[in-house]
Amino acid sequence: MGSIYQGSLQISIFGQSHSETIGVVIDGLPAGKKIDTEALNAFLQRRAPGRNAFSTSRKEADEPVFVSGLRQGMTCGAPVCALIYNHNTRSSDYSELADKPRPGHADYTAFVKYGSAHDIRGGGHFSGRLTAPLCIAGGICLQLLEEEGITVGAHVLSVHGVGEERFDPVHLNAETLRQLAQNEFPTLNGEKGEAMCEEIAKAKGELDSVGGVIECAAVGLPAGLGEPVFDGMENRISRAVFAIPAIKGIEFGAGFAVSEMTGSQNNDPFFYDEMGKVCTRTNHHGGILGGITSGMPLVFRCAVKPTPSIFRTQQTVSLSQKTDCELTVQGRHDPCIAVRAVPCVISAAAIALYDALLESKKGKN
Amino acid sequence: MGSIYQGSLQISIFGQSHSETIGVVIDGLPAGKKIDTEALNAFLQRRAPGRNAFSTSRKEADEPVFVSGLRQGMTCGAPVCALIYNHNTRSSDYSELADKPRPGHADYTAFVKYGSAHDIRGGGHFSGRLTAPLCIAGGICLQLLEEEGITVGAHVLSVHGVGEERFDPVHLNAETLRQLAQNEFPTLNGEKGEAMCEEIAKAKGELDSVGGVIECAAVGLPAGLGEPVFDGMENRISRAVFAIPAIKGIEFGAGFAVSEMTGSQNNDPFFYDEMGKVCTRTNHHGGILGGITSGMPLVFRCAVKPTPSIFRTQQTVSLSQKTDCELTVQGRHDPCIAVRAVPCVISAAAIALYDALLESKKGKN
Amino acid sequence: MGSIYQGSLQISIFGQSHSETIGVVIDGLPAGKKIDTEALNAFLQRRAPGRNAFSTSRKEADEPVFVSGLRQGMTCGAPVCALIYNHNTRSSDYSELADKPRPGHADYTAFVKYGSAHDIRGGGHFSGRLTAPLCIAGGICLQLLEEEGITVGAHVLSVHGVGEERFDPVHLNAETLRQLAQNEFPTLNGEKGEAMCEEIAKAKGELDSVGGVIECAAVGLPAGLGEPVFDGMENRISRAVFAIPAIKGIEFGAGFAVSEMTGSQNNDPFFYDEMGKVCTRTNHHGGILGGITSGMPLVFRCAVKPTPSIFRTQQTVSLSQKTDCELTVQGRHDPCIAVRAVPCVISAAAIALYDALLESKKGKN
Amino acid sequence: MGSIYQGSLQISIFGQSHSETIGVVIDGLPAGKKIDTEALNAFLQRRAPGRNAFSTSRKEADEPVFVSGLRQGMTCGAPVCALIYNHNTRSSDYSELADKPRPGHADYTAFVKYGSAHDIRGGGHFSGRLTAPLCIAGGICLQLLEEEGITVGAHVLSVHGVGEERFDPVHLNAETLRQLAQNEFPTLNGEKGEAMCEEIAKAKGELDSVGGVIECAAVGLPAGLGEPVFDGMENRISRAVFAIPAIKGIEFGAGFAVSEMTGSQNNDPFFYDEMGKVCTRTNHHGGILGGITSGMPLVFRCAVKPTPSIFRTQQTVSLSQKTDCELTVQGRHDPCIAVRAVPCVISAAAIALYDALLESKKGKN
Repeated sequence: MGSIYQGSLQISIFGQSHSETIGVVIDGLPAGKKIDTEALNAFLQRRAPGRNAFSTSRKEADEPVFVSGLRQGMTCGAPVCALIYNHNTRSSDYSELADKPRPGHADYTAFVKYGSAHDIRGGGHFSGRLTAPLCIAGGICLQLLEEEGITVGAHVLSVHGVGEERFDPVHLNAETLRQLAQNEFPTLNGEKGEAMCEEIAKAKGELDSVGGVIECAAVGLPAGLGEPVFDGMENRISRAVFAIPAIKGIEFGAGFAVSEMTGSQNNDPFFYDEMGKVCTRTNHHGGILGGITSGMPLVFRCAVKPTPSIFRTQQTVSLSQKTDCELTVQGRHDPCIAVRAVPCVISAAAIALYDALLESKKGKN
Repeated sequence: MGSIYQGSLQISIFGQSHSETIGVVIDGLPAGKKIDTEALNAFLQRRAPGRNAFSTSRKEADEPVFVSGLRQGMTCGAPVCALIYNHNTRSSDYSELADKPRPGHADYTAFVKYGSAHDIRGGGHFSGRLTAPLCIAGGICLQLLEEEGITVGAHVLSVHGVGEERFDPVHLNAETLRQLAQNEFPTLNGEKGEAMCEEIAKAKGELDSVGGVIECAAVGLPAGLGEPVFDGMENRISRAVFAIPAIKGIEFGAGFAVSEMTGSQNNDPFFYDEMGKVCTRTNHHGGILGGITSGMPLVFRCAVKPTPSIFRTQQTVSLSQKTDCELTVQGRHDPCIAVRAVPCVISAAAIALYDALLESKKGKN
Repeated sequence: MGSIYQGSLQISIFGQSHSETIGVVIDGLPAGKKIDTEALNAFLQRRAPGRNAFSTSRKEADEPVFVSGLRQGMTCGAPVCALIYNHNTRSSDYSELADKPRPGHADYTAFVKYGSAHDIRGGGHFSGRLTAPLCIAGGICLQLLEEEGITVGAHVLSVHGVGEERFDPVHLNAETLRQLAQNEFPTLNGEKGEAMCEEIAKAKGELDSVGGVIECAAVGLPAGLGEPVFDGMENRISRAVFAIPAIKGIEFGAGFAVSEMTGSQNNDPFFYDEMGKVCTRTNHHGGILGGITSGMPLVFRCAVKPTPSIFRTQQTVSLSQKTDCELTVQGRHDPCIAVRAVPCVISAAAIALYDALLESKKGKN
Repeated sequence: MGSIYQGSLQISIFGQSHSETIGVVIDGLPAGKKIDTEALNAFLQRRAPGRNAFSTSRKEADEPVFVSGLRQGMTCGAPVCALIYNHNTRSSDYSELADKPRPGHADYTAFVKYGSAHDIRGGGHFSGRLTAPLCIAGGICLQLLEEEGITVGAHVLSVHGVGEERFDPVHLNAETLRQLAQNEFPTLNGEKGEAMCEEIAKAKGELDSVGGVIECAAVGLPAGLGEPVFDGMENRISRAVFAIPAIKGIEFGAGFAVSEMTGSQNNDPFFYDEMGKVCTRTNHHGGILGGITSGMPLVFRCAVKPTPSIFRTQQTVSLSQKTDCELTVQGRHDPCIAVRAVPCVISAAAIALYDALLESKKGKN
């Protein structure tokens, strides 16, 4: 329980924002798989801090060092361990926080859970920085999924209410998803992307932050992935996605809109396409029926809250004084975490999907 | 993987819609806990079919038979197994479905996964009927939570877009939640409830169905429940909630609305209340920070799709003929599954919470 | 944790000696597998009580009722649940035991663990009777292994020090193992078996009981089953075998004798046999190297303690009086549990092997 | 599945003999526990190579570097990750082995499992070197158990048939166990220890190796640890002990000797000692009844095979040539691995016990 994703793959995430390293152990990868570290690093750069105007000024190379499990760039069957060293830490920024929990952060709940032993520096194990090892695992799964003809991608669907069109859940293709990975700001529509950037810049200027929505999709999936009841694709993806600190909601296919629909609107009619494959005319089900992939694009969206660290003075408490007080958060923080969360959401999806793919091969002849 | 919820509690759900029984094994309950079977049965009746106008006409007593784990009405330390016998099955209704998958159901995906071995009758293991054993486990957890001063409840927030007010996430109390359990149609506002019933009746009259939103909350929670990364309360509750077939989305606290907010709006300021307890002025975080309970009411909403079984003719395929065709679904089905899903959502939350509560005691002196 | 075997297969065992039923839920079996219930019942009869002179006089039909997971005798993909009803219970026999724990039984430790809530009747969940559901799961795995060309069998190697020859670990074949299943008293050598029966009869006459050793083997195994470190075949088999109450030791291949050997004696030289298969000249490794099957016969032995329930007066304590006292155990008990434990040990091995077999297919193309 | 111990504690072991590091992630330790790294290093030195005449000449400092989870020497609630860098590797020694599997090693089975991707250098993930991270986890558990008044220790009971007396399973105390940790060669009886050393020296002189038996015990245990069926103490300890490569057998209490005993001999009579504690007069049950600790000393023995790497010429196969051939193993190897396996066995026991101890607190008020 805790920091280990359990399934056919087992992914153990460790580290604190200011510990010597953060890292991940991945157990259960098939042997003999080539890992393209260059592509992996490029993927990780999408999450890395200090890259652009939307991100914290904390700069970290964030290149993983593989200390086990690879042999000549290939998985050897042993668990893969990758480390990222924490270099650019400024622990003094956090001295006040042991006493005054930041609103919107885990400082208070971690204090209740772990007492004064909690490593408060940079948020400790609760830091968004811990999504870097998630992205190492996710980036590897992404490559192994591509090998099986499955592509996962995501875009920023909206920022502070300024949005763009959703994926076409019926005709979405791998090319569109791959193209998004090339964009500095991952939107389908460049102009809408610029409008979102303006929202972020405005928030930053106001010492504030903004939330957003990320839409993620996978195409090329075979039908039949996922297990009933507790291990359907919605269960698995949710479990992985909520490992990303700022996520407060997830919806699959038509999502919350199903609540306003009738069955005759929401049901997706089946038909045979020209290739003899069973498809659906619409895709309100988001590629998942009964927890199991239908072969249609798998589509989900998740809500990302505004970065809780803002530079305005906020109301909090002094745990030592047992009084209310004010706090002005120091440090370096993104004005919109939704941008850098894009590869994290892709990673969560890739982990859940590759896990289900491995699972589906069990018991097959 | 599959039909077992894994944690400090382990809950194994089995059965098909038309198998001899459905049931559940619950391992990990503390010994010496009295189970109030009368209260449990009352809770299960909220889910049972055939009770009112909004529900299928399939009548099942749905009283669990405890075949192990209880001794004189008390948990004895051994796993608790409860069975519900399936009586009122009409398997002939489903003969066509092995060939023609119902839109919006798991028929097609189960066929891909299990081949012709799948028990298609009534949807088999994918039937909404399998939420009855979930409710047995949930109903027991609900009682054990009450013993610790924790109350879980839910209301139908909207049906087909017709809604009522949300819970007050700051001042919500146990009394309000308990009162909801007494209402035949669980809304805070009776008039709004009637308007929702009209929507359902209208859909039924049109041989159609409608979706809805359920809002669920827990009060009396201690701060400190949940683990970081993969076993936070959002991860745990999601994993359990998506075991309910019709759920397509979940959001915690302010949920998707966080995407339109700024940090200064969304952050919940801390303060000491008159009892010396750390509280927040607002509760956009829904009682969960960093995956861990804050002690504020835990609030989440989930989207329930319209019952996919409608009596209108629909487009589907014949898997044997490999052609497109039409299908008119027979059988007995709810026009709005969201109503009977209320105790299921409560159950999922209760399981996740009681599991986290047991976990939190580990390692304590 | 507790009564669930976790792996690619998940096996949840429930029930107490005198609860309404005992039973098992098996999750993870491939769909479309025919279960030969006649063969399964025959296998279970080898464990069932009341069959012969070596066994308790408690008579139970012990035929499993499958209440879910099978459709026309075939696995349908849903979890398989099987029940055995407890009929011939005599709960009054156990009234004294709640206060006076039987030496060699779990009465005292269960009392410490569960307090007075423990179901002491017949030993409750700790009863040897709970090996019946283990044998249902094991008997099913046994059939599925046979389908893949793998045969598991066992013999009573010794009783109270009176023994017969061990399996030939190099040339052992399926025929020998299958033949053992036909013997009323499962030994390779009938005369030696008779000598063992005499030991048992003698112990019974003296109101006593005797221990023994069971040797179990599997042939036809592919090389490559098992995972490193914590999920090798020794780890898996041990975990399953120690679910049988009376087992106090297990050894693989040459076992404890390796401690008296040199490396040059113990190492098994590799060679290619006439079929081009890599074999070993000797088999001190018992078919397992580094936790992984080598393709040679897998061989292990386990020590079974004398039935703790004997009819002689024994020394114990009165938990209520907090004094030492005497106890004469009533009830119906085997003078040598090792005989009926044979199918249990086979079951434990079959579960561990079939689990590893399913696991090995994961990630294969 | 594989290299993760799963329980209340989750211990993920990674690394290969010649990878950059080996290491361990430990999730689930309570927060606020001081780790005495000096004592831990002293414990690890008992396993470290290159220390004395009985051990390989490969010298490794084997001091763990804690890269996460500790804050000022104290657990902070986050997973603890410790690394050991591999320095003194001689990969060229192993070039031949990719083709010619060493008898008694996992080379062949790993080749079957992972194909040519397997990291054969030094045995890869199957190397005895991977017991170092096991000992880090075990050494930490050992300290946390001591804090609760529980002491675990072990001695070499025999080498190549030359043995000493067993622990007194009734009167064994912590002092005796702690004293053993001070001995260079851990025996109760120094003279017997010298005789064992002579056996080892003799084997080394003959380019051979010898096996042995390790006896391990824990005292100060509360009654009530362990769960029924699959998670009793025997199951847990076995699962952990068989993570040590050379172990081929394990027995608890009287172990295999129970097979030659009668019930009246084997049953351990209960009595109240002068402190009002329930004890047993004898301890054939080895401190475990029904899988659950009785409060008596927990005692088990395990068989350690002779180091398979010997310097004599051995028979094996060439996998590339598909012919039989000879092999002379190079490298640096212990003539008797049983000596350095002592802290490994202690570690396995400490992990299983501390895991069960944490588990036992769950659900307690």
